Amino acid sequence: MATTLISNGTVVTASETRVADVLIDGERIQAVAPRLTVAADRIIDAAGRYVIPGGIDVHTHLDMPYGDIVSSDDFRTGTIAAAHGGTTAIVDFAVQDRGGSLRGALDGWRRRADGRAVIDYGFHMIVCDFRDAVEREMDALIAEGVTSFKFFMAYPDRLMLDDGAIFRALRRTAHNGGLVTVHAENGAVIDVLVQRARAEGHTAPRYHALTRPARTEAEAVYRAIALAELAGVPIYIVHLSSAEGLQVVREARARGVTVLAETCPQYLFLDDTQYAAPGFEGAKYVMSPPLRARDGQAALWDGLARHDLHAVATDHCPFTLSQKAAGAGDFSKIPGGAPGIETRMSLMFDGGVRAGRLSLNRFVEVTATSPAKIFGLWPDRGTIAPGAIADVVVFDPELEVRLDATALHMRVDYSPYEGMVVRGGPVVVMARGEVVVEDGRFVGRPGRGRFIRRAARSG
Amino acid sequence: MATTLISNGTVVTASETRVADVLIDGERIQAVAPRLTVAADRIIDAAGRYVIPGGIDVHTHLDMPYGDIVSSDDFRTGTIAAAHGGTTAIVDFAVQDRGGSLRGALDGWRRRADGRAVIDYGFHMIVCDFRDAVEREMDALIAEGVTSFKFFMAYPDRLMLDDGAIFRALRRTAHNGGLVTVHAENGAVIDVLVQRARAEGHTAPRYHALTRPARTEAEAVYRAIALAELAGVPIYIVHLSSAEGLQVVREARARGVTVLAETCPQYLFLDDTQYAAPGFEGAKYVMSPPLRARDGQAALWDGLARHDLHAVATDHCPFTLSQKAAGAGDFSKIPGGAPGIETRMSLMFDGGVRAGRLSLNRFVEVTATSPAKIFGLWPDRGTIAPGAIADVVVFDPELEVRLDATALHMRVDYSPYEGMVVRGGPVVVMARGEVVVEDGRFVGRPGRGRFIRRAARSG
Amino acid sequence: MATTLISNGTVVTASETRVADVLIDGERIQAVAPRLTVAADRIIDAAGRYVIPGGIDVHTHLDMPYGDIVSSDDFRTGTIAAAHGGTTAIVDFAVQDRGGSLRGALDGWRRRADGRAVIDYGFHMIVCDFRDAVEREMDALIAEGVTSFKFFMAYPDRLMLDDGAIFRALRRTAHNGGLVTVHAENGAVIDVLVQRARAEGHTAPRYHALTRPARTEAEAVYRAIALAELAGVPIYIVHLSSAEGLQVVREARARGVTVLAETCPQYLFLDDTQYAAPGFEGAKYVMSPPLRARDGQAALWDGLARHDLHAVATDHCPFTLSQKAAGAGDFSKIPGGAPGIETRMSLMFDGGVRAGRLSLNRFVEVTATSPAKIFGLWPDRGTIAPGAIADVVVFDPELEVRLDATALHMRVDYSPYEGMVVRGGPVVVMARGEVVVEDGRFVGRPGRGRFIRRAARSG
Amino acid sequence: MATTLISNGTVVTASETRVADVLIDGERIQAVAPRLTVAADRIIDAAGRYVIPGGIDVHTHLDMPYGDIVSSDDFRTGTIAAAHGGTTAIVDFAVQDRGGSLRGALDGWRRRADGRAVIDYGFHMIVCDFRDAVEREMDALIAEGVTSFKFFMAYPDRLMLDDGAIFRALRRTAHNGGLVTVHAENGAVIDVLVQRARAEGHTAPRYHALTRPARTEAEAVYRAIALAELAGVPIYIVHLSSAEGLQVVREARARGVTVLAETCPQYLFLDDTQYAAPGFEGAKYVMSPPLRARDGQAALWDGLARHDLHAVATDHCPFTLSQKAAGAGDFSKIPGGAPGIETRMSLMFDGGVRAGRLSLNRFVEVTATSPAKIFGLWPDRGTIAPGAIADVVVFDPELEVRLDATALHMRVDYSPYEGMVVRGGPVVVMARGEVVVEDGRFVGRPGRGRFIRRAARSG
Repeated sequence: MATTLISNGTVVTASETRVADVLIDGERIQAVAPRLTVAADRIIDAAGRYVIPGGIDVHTHLDMPYGDIVSSDDFRTGTIAAAHGGTTAIVDFAVQDRGGSLRGALDGWRRRADGRAVIDYGFHMIVCDFRDAVEREMDALIAEGVTSFKFFMAYPDRLMLDDGAIFRALRRTAHNGGLVTVHAENGAVIDVLVQRARAEGHTAPRYHALTRPARTEAEAVYRAIALAELAGVPIYIVHLSSAEGLQVVREARARGVTVLAETCPQYLFLDDTQYAAPGFEGAKYVMSPPLRARDGQAALWDGLARHDLHAVATDHCPFTLSQKAAGAGDFSKIPGGAPGIETRMSLMFDGGVRAGRLSLNRFVEVTATSPAKIFGLWPDRGTIAPGAIADVVVFDPELEVRLDATALHMRVDYSPYEGMVVRGGPVVVMARGEVVVEDGRFVGRPGRGRFIRRAARSG
Repeated sequence: MATTLISNGTVVTASETRVADVLIDGERIQAVAPRLTVAADRIIDAAGRYVIPGGIDVHTHLDMPYGDIVSSDDFRTGTIAAAHGGTTAIVDFAVQDRGGSLRGALDGWRRRADGRAVIDYGFHMIVCDFRDAVEREMDALIAEGVTSFKFFMAYPDRLMLDDGAIFRALRRTAHNGGLVTVHAENGAVIDVLVQRARAEGHTAPRYHALTRPARTEAEAVYRAIALAELAGVPIYIVHLSSAEGLQVVREARARGVTVLAETCPQYLFLDDTQYAAPGFEGAKYVMSPPLRARDGQAALWDGLARHDLHAVATDHCPFTLSQKAAGAGDFSKIPGGAPGIETRMSLMFDGGVRAGRLSLNRFVEVTATSPAKIFGLWPDRGTIAPGAIADVVVFDPELEVRLDATALHMRVDYSPYEGMVVRGGPVVVMARGEVVVEDGRFVGRPGRGRFIRRAARSG
Repeated sequence: MATTLISNGTVVTASETRVADVLIDGERIQAVAPRLTVAADRIIDAAGRYVIPGGIDVHTHLDMPYGDIVSSDDFRTGTIAAAHGGTTAIVDFAVQDRGGSLRGALDGWRRRADGRAVIDYGFHMIVCDFRDAVEREMDALIAEGVTSFKFFMAYPDRLMLDDGAIFRALRRTAHNGGLVTVHAENGAVIDVLVQRARAEGHTAPRYHALTRPARTEAEAVYRAIALAELAGVPIYIVHLSSAEGLQVVREARARGVTVLAETCPQYLFLDDTQYAAPGFEGAKYVMSPPLRARDGQAALWDGLARHDLHAVATDHCPFTLSQKAAGAGDFSKIPGGAPGIETRMSLMFDGGVRAGRLSLNRFVEVTATSPAKIFGLWPDRGTIAPGAIADVVVFDPELEVRLDATALHMRVDYSPYEGMVVRGGPVVVMARGEVVVEDGRFVGRPGRGRFIRRAARSG
Repeated sequence: MATTLISNGTVVTASETRVADVLIDGERIQAVAPRLTVAADRIIDAAGRYVIPGGIDVHTHLDMPYGDIVSSDDFRTGTIAAAHGGTTAIVDFAVQDRGGSLRGALDGWRRRADGRAVIDYGFHMIVCDFRDAVEREMDALIAEGVTSFKFFMAYPDRLMLDDGAIFRALRRTAHNGGLVTVHAENGAVIDVLVQRARAEGHTAPRYHALTRPARTEAEAVYRAIALAELAGVPIYIVHLSSAEGLQVVREARARGVTVLAETCPQYLFLDDTQYAAPGFEGAKYVMSPPLRARDGQAALWDGLARHDLHAVATDHCPFTLSQKAAGAGDFSKIPGGAPGIETRMSLMFDGGVRAGRLSLNRFVEVTATSPAKIFGLWPDRGTIAPGAIADVVVFDPELEVRLDATALHMRVDYSPYEGMVVRGGPVVVMARGEVVVEDGRFVGRPGRGRFIRRAARSG
């Protein structure tokens, strides 16, 4: 197998920062040490650059059906974009059909990804029809490496499950080692607000945000945590967006509950003033939860720095402007979601490390190490260490990265960060020992990505 | 009309404590002043005693249907017992039938009470079938003096309404001045716990408490408050039982939400060790929420003292031991509720004032003044002041009161406080200017009590 | 003795609001009741007006020496101004000399006040030289009606006492029933900041505020409370100015410590942008603590509404502009203090009641009832009740009050509120049964005010 | 230079846990990787064992003068004991003389340690006489590698400095990169309590604890943090002992202040019931702060797990029983301190990792990595990584370690943990590449330890 030596870089992990060479032999890292004097098939000079674990994005929706349409990136285009951005593994979501089995959903999603993805991928399972048989099936899925399950507290009549179902699932994970994750918004309240807004003739995109106030998130967060606390198991909150929600997480952690929570770059960099854009512009930012008030962002950054938030994922779920146009006359019909799989690492580096909000180590931890540990990818991934899979990024802290749609690789015709330039980005991206992106060019092979069988919680 | 002079007592209101005479002319207080030198039809010497506003119990269930049975006190026996205990007005609950109107429920409950009650009474309306028409009907009820509405977050399939319904009702009160009250327990979670306990063959009364942990209350309290906050209106939590729930109330108040909350003597004086009683004894204490761990009681007392809890009511809902026996083989079939309408004032005086946990003024405030202000009985009731209705109690701080069932007047064959003796109790109880209890003898007339048309919130 | 009937007003106390007549016989209130049909020497029609207890200002510095000068109001001019503003009793501060006795200080201050004051007055004792003999002398002072003692945590070398002295005094009050009050600012830190500012050539008034940041107050508040908690006694914080300090009070109360705290109108209405005024203008606002950032004011108002702050006093300590000029070249030499004794009631009514931040009852409570209860003036003062001393104000909620220096009566040539007009003010002010101000005219007699022997804490 | 290969162990760092070989070449680690196939002078089989960074104890007092006596371990005996316990570097305290220079103190302490210590050592500087010259001298010390300074808030007349001095020192560190650490107890209050206890004839050791209640620590912690916040620099709290103090740290961190805090095993494993021992037994536990109530220990463990506490050090300061006897008739004369340098790693492993309170990684972090990072020993020490100094411990998780005085190597005739057996201890201890302890035998050479020039804060 081919060997690669990344020399002279500053190797950064969740706890270390030191100049060292990294020797890769086939799919795995063989050695990390200063001045490795070995022969290698290829030598990459990383002087003045960081050598970091490839990003792990544990919240993506590629090729996802949404009514009659699907999200505009499939597993090929989406993972190519991910690789461009320095992300070398994702965990996407398979969605159970109402009446269907979890297994059927997994099979369907494997078919979408297998043969297309460029980087490795796992799946969470979205449960939207919880029956006794489905509860039992959770154990089987875990045995196959799908060890986390997502439940919606929003979208009644479509995805939402009641507290009893979520509570039963949580209790099940006490025995099978699965991890329950939740989309925490109070769907019933939001529905009342949406219906009322529509009845009053409000159609503009900004009503999407106005009908999903932050307290609807904080409420659902409190409730989800209470269910987990009653079941005696950990819980993971996806895409936490508000200072209000974070406060609930904090207080729960202070009373000893194991709450894990993720936020996304959009909640750290964008805010609800976007919805004031004229015409239908705001539709670009229609996602759930919506963007929040700017003055809550400092709390989210602080939550990341102080270990109250544990992961940064993207909720990448792009729709083109023509897809978004389905909601031109009714904000509640706008497909919800935005692109982000490619921009996460650069945004977090610039806004986190360069801006002094996160240490280099914490940047690595929230973008790779911690997601890997939480979702059973560890110790294979999420670090630079001998024996680990060689998902490695050579990251240039001075690289200018334009976040315009035309400069990016996601299959969508707009960027939420249009016009923005950040500093810090990947110059070489290796996935399982192969270089897939180099100096901004994709050099990998679609279909080389493999399904990741993730481990269950042991503790 | 007859005049009565209560002389030389120490008149206590929510803010005053001073020796004064109280002159009553007909149904109202005419004067309060030291050494009133006036003629009166009757003079009551209150030297060495407190003259306090009659207690107002805003949480009772008299003559309440529960499956095939009814609570064992009707409006005659229950209000006689109330009067014995120093309570001179109650607010009971009318219960909407599923499919029925609020008006129909009110008419039914008026029929139960009119002609039987000894003291004046109002009604809250329990809404258990929320439709557009019912939402509109709330306004009409308020016009008739039923200005508060109770919603259950527990008991799915019977009483529970979803968050959307409660939220709509809350929004309605922004305009009609009503007040929403909630029974805050997470019914869905509790149902899972109950079904599982039964499936595992657990039948004993103590499983009632084990299947309703305190966090199920705290969760529902957080949720109810969030709904009110989103609606921009006050909310009232009935029978708050746990330190966990109180903590949620506190934090909400600290962030500026108008949360009002009530607790009951059983949560201040009794604890969950009662359920460890042998055999079926624990059934006496089957109520919802259940009794809690003793170490939370100090927090509840502190909440009363520091204005985080605002009222002490009883949730009086007695069932006889033979009625309780319906659940002999299945804890979930035990009729839930316990007697308390008669013992509230003496318990609160002894455990509150004598024990140094509440000032005299705060004792009066939480048992009479504050309930009157919250529920639209003010300024007619809840104080001793010229012009107010003459609901007045001469209270002897040294009176020994035995809390045995045989010593009390409630129509139920046990007492939760059997064997307990407290100090402090009424020696003369006047309701609307008439003495109804004197030295432990009932001297009133059943049927003299009147329906109280309560005022809506103005603010 | 003369009798006065105040008829048809809305009598407001800390818990009651009702239309009633108030009959005053000599120095005391004889009756409060609707439609009193009695003869009286004088009848005052209060229809459409509030009849409230006269304000009690527990923090004034009249005729106070400050280096070579004295505060510009003496006990005659200051109490006349107080009466104009609706205040009928004050508690001023006697100041112990270093080396001197408490008794000597009291005698000296009695001489300043006796024969001059128009309304009744008590004294706190400022202790600035704490020795064994002084500790014992505290008991004697209490016996004479000086039941509260103030300690400075600021002003090293002049007034500041160390934690050991304050702690000893606190312990003493566990036995003698006195109440310790503190000026809570960290003097040592402030001194470093002041010296450094001066060393850097900063002379302008705004450096007064910049060298006393809010955390220096919060720190001293935490410390003072800890000392009281360790001593097992209550403590009273004077002139709390910051949200940071309030947060400390709140948390201490939540853990069960009896902390009482006062704020002043200047901290509720004015903010630190005043110091940006050109030239020496900012000197008008040089006081300690200084004015704070505007965004903390909401917290203070909330603290008053929710019983975390208990009294509103003025810290009235006026200096004329020519007196202020002593610090023209050095901010640290500006005499600290500002006028306020006359404007408190109108400001609190307008900004509190009219603005919806305080209920009418709470307005009365924080300006009169609660100060009376805390400082041993109760039950004689602080309420409208038969038997109480007739300190009564007829208050017109619509009266326009101009806060310009020329419109006010304090002996000082500027107003911190120049140009401001508020609504709500006294039309008749009665002190001990005599009208002293009527329709803006002073009709009382200097020297009629008497020394108030205050009661010690009983509890 | 000699090479050593530690093979087959589980290498644990602050973020990694994986089976790997560790190659040491001379004083440094050369490689860490699975299955290193290299020749080495010595091969140590670590199968089934952890290979961890040597412990770093940043709070010791060896050869410390205390009145007429000195602590019973000198730099030879103390560091041998440290090595036995798996600790390979310490930071001890040099103490400035009143009137003396910092440089003089450092020289004196270098003389005590040089030529005697077995492992490497640095010094903090205790400042007890703060003058302008001393403030300037701080910069010089930092240039020599003494980058942290300790200030006492307790022990007036001996060590305590006032808030102004500490504040000035903190401000200085904003420029020179030093770190201020504090002993946080309110010395003035404690002195009053001690004097009073003595005046009442209380002489027994338990009065040591009774006169230093937890709130005196929490107060000082709040104050110290406030000073740092005002100065805009980090601060480090040594030997935090109480849940009350931790709560203050938590709240400060939540508001964004960089507070770092250390606790010690004695506060996690022992409690104040020790002082109830008969006779003079309690003297063994006389240390400051004293042992606390058992129910606060869970909070401290939680603080370590959740990153609110950052380091575990020992405050090793042993005195023999005959030295302790100086306080036989007066608790305040008992030399304060206890042994601990040898027992830290085993206690923390057993009570932390084995008991499920700390992850393996967090155990390493709080005993080595985090102290190294905080005090400028990083990246040379505190981790297992190529290029780092070879301070490495082979740690057997099943080793039984008896904590009796006779089984330990500290020069003191008692153990606070007498009779206790824990599991987990070092089997091989390497310091700078040399084995110094092996299978419980000391094989090192006194005097081989070197002075560590520590780095200043960069951030």
